[in-house]
Amino acid sequence: MHQEQRQRAHDLLRSRQVRRALFANPYTVTWLTGFAPSLQVGPSPFAGGPPLVWYEDGEFILVVLDASDTAMIDIPIIRYAGNTVETPILSAENLAAVLDDLLTKASPGPIGVELRHLPAFLLPPGQTSAIDGWLDPLRMVKTAEELEKLRRSFALTDLAHVAARTTTVAGAREIDVWAAAHSAAQQAAGGRIAFGNDCVVSYRENNIGGWPGNLELRPGDSLMMDISTRVDGYWSDSCATYYVGEPDAKRRAMHHVAEQALAFAISLVKPGALANEIDRQVRQFIAAAGYPVYPHHTGHSVGVSTHEEPRIVPYNNTMLEAGMVLMLEPGIYFPREAAVRLEDALLVTATGSEVLTHHDKSL
Amino acid sequence: MHQEQRQRAHDLLRSRQVRRALFANPYTVTWLTGFAPSLQVGPSPFAGGPPLVWYEDGEFILVVLDASDTAMIDIPIIRYAGNTVETPILSAENLAAVLDDLLTKASPGPIGVELRHLPAFLLPPGQTSAIDGWLDPLRMVKTAEELEKLRRSFALTDLAHVAARTTTVAGAREIDVWAAAHSAAQQAAGGRIAFGNDCVVSYRENNIGGWPGNLELRPGDSLMMDISTRVDGYWSDSCATYYVGEPDAKRRAMHHVAEQALAFAISLVKPGALANEIDRQVRQFIAAAGYPVYPHHTGHSVGVSTHEEPRIVPYNNTMLEAGMVLMLEPGIYFPREAAVRLEDALLVTATGSEVLTHHDKSL
Repeated sequence: MHQEQRQRAHDLLRSRQVRRALFANPYTVTWLTGFAPSLQVGPSPFAGGPPLVWYEDGEFILVVLDASDTAMIDIPIIRYAGNTVETPILSAENLAAVLDDLLTKASPGPIGVELRHLPAFLLPPGQTSAIDGWLDPLRMVKTAEELEKLRRSFALTDLAHVAARTTTVAGAREIDVWAAAHSAAQQAAGGRIAFGNDCVVSYRENNIGGWPGNLELRPGDSLMMDISTRVDGYWSDSCATYYVGEPDAKRRAMHHVAEQALAFAISLVKPGALANEIDRQVRQFIAAAGYPVYPHHTGHSVGVSTHEEPRIVPYNNTMLEAGMVLMLEPGIYFPREAAVRLEDALLVTATGSEVLTHHDKSL
Repeated sequence: MHQEQRQRAHDLLRSRQVRRALFANPYTVTWLTGFAPSLQVGPSPFAGGPPLVWYEDGEFILVVLDASDTAMIDIPIIRYAGNTVETPILSAENLAAVLDDLLTKASPGPIGVELRHLPAFLLPPGQTSAIDGWLDPLRMVKTAEELEKLRRSFALTDLAHVAARTTTVAGAREIDVWAAAHSAAQQAAGGRIAFGNDCVVSYRENNIGGWPGNLELRPGDSLMMDISTRVDGYWSDSCATYYVGEPDAKRRAMHHVAEQALAFAISLVKPGALANEIDRQVRQFIAAAGYPVYPHHTGHSVGVSTHEEPRIVPYNNTMLEAGMVLMLEPGIYFPREAAVRLEDALLVTATGSEVLTHHDKSL
């Protein structure tokens, strides 16, 4: 699994004369190996540290806690002991010992390290250099294996949106719609699914984003539902705006402009297009329609993380390539009053794009 | 908020001649400040690192990402910029700069650091020493403020158990019961709630614990539902075993022994009791009833984490004190066949204990 990713990483490291490396960023680890550990809120009391990948001259080794599910992993794995009832928890000591052993056996010389995620107690002695972010550009073009995971993630999001649309009714609260959508995703997946991002009623002061709360939907309100799901370590994304009863003229007009802005944005997606040029044109489209321009990004990619390169923002002159996945999400916001955002996922193809999201974004 | 915790930490650090310290363990940070950031699966692409607490001579400062909700925090806060659309994401650089500034202004000398959680790129130059785990023993006796948070967390768990019991019916799957219980907790709380731990049908090979899956409940099966919720950073815990239809004689007998074992365990809880002595006696109770002794801990505490000291395990000779909170969870397991576990939370009082969980654990 993810052999192509390791080949890309190896080629990059070799080209930069890095013969030994230690990866500690969870996103990097998932991308390099396919290892997508179960959701955890906060560090596990039983784990010594994050999963690690050790690299030396083209060979990759995954270092994980003993109880980890590694059924699909096809590279060497080193496990360290976590929780037992017979002794105090020594998981950190055990992890440090495993790493020490790896370093002792390694050929001598400097080590590239993801210093932003490696816990300080695991820092190798001797010469190290920061390699944070090095693999991020390699993650931009998705592999066939990743696209398969992403498609399943997007399909789950589509299902969650059906539940969200159905439960957006007068008297329901943000959290009720959220719980219904999350349950629908988990029941369809047959297991736990990590779930994001925004669930906000239009009369909030900040109606651009936020977690669901206790606020009740009233006739005439709208609810912006921005949903991400994580399947085998891969995050989807998507947004729709739902209405309680019949939307008024102002909301209908806003919704139509958002639909047109999204369609326009999609029309700009093809190999060779520049990220910042798409950003500029979509913002201009909203402004030309007479609305305030949204304060957030026009889009971004997804993959092992919820927001990754290429970001569709003013400063980013990345040129699109076939195989990239883009989220596009124009919105219009009037604080405390009305808000609409519509978001689709696009796969950049040889000639244009394929829409990966199939949720109903109509009024 | 959490002034008493900071006083305890200050007294300890002073007694050990540590004048400057950097805390990076999320549990420590929540315990010292009350800061309980929203659930995150994996590191945020927009955060430079975990929330930090800087300590110098009795003064504590919280360092967090700009968007963090710190409404309840009553110590100085330093914020650093994360995501903007105008520039590349420089959150790690921004966090490093903030820390650098703090260190520059600090009086010279060695710094105590939680090295197991501080990302290596933030390691202060100059002399550092590991202070990992130092505050853990201070967390054992809960403050009144913490007990109030824990009581709310346990109350939510009680509600989730009602939903779990109601939805444990033939044809439902583990994930269906899980989703119903999680939704009930979130709807009662009016917001997102982190949710654990186990949801396993009795015919699993490993029926001791695990995440819910696609397995269907059949008449005669049982479902072990071990629920934790997180409220204001504080984790509850609790377990019950539910039956699909009428349990057979073997299961009824197992359930009654588990009930008796839990009642016996609770009777042992009082100031002065030893953790390992409780562990030994409860294991012996199960063995004396003719059942295989469970392979896991007899119990543990909860608080800012789901498993903390005192652990009720064979090696731990910690003496119980009033104000400690204990989970007790004897179980009986026959792989692929039958399983029961019942768990309550106890507050150690001056004369014995008070049960904090009120879920229905009857047959």
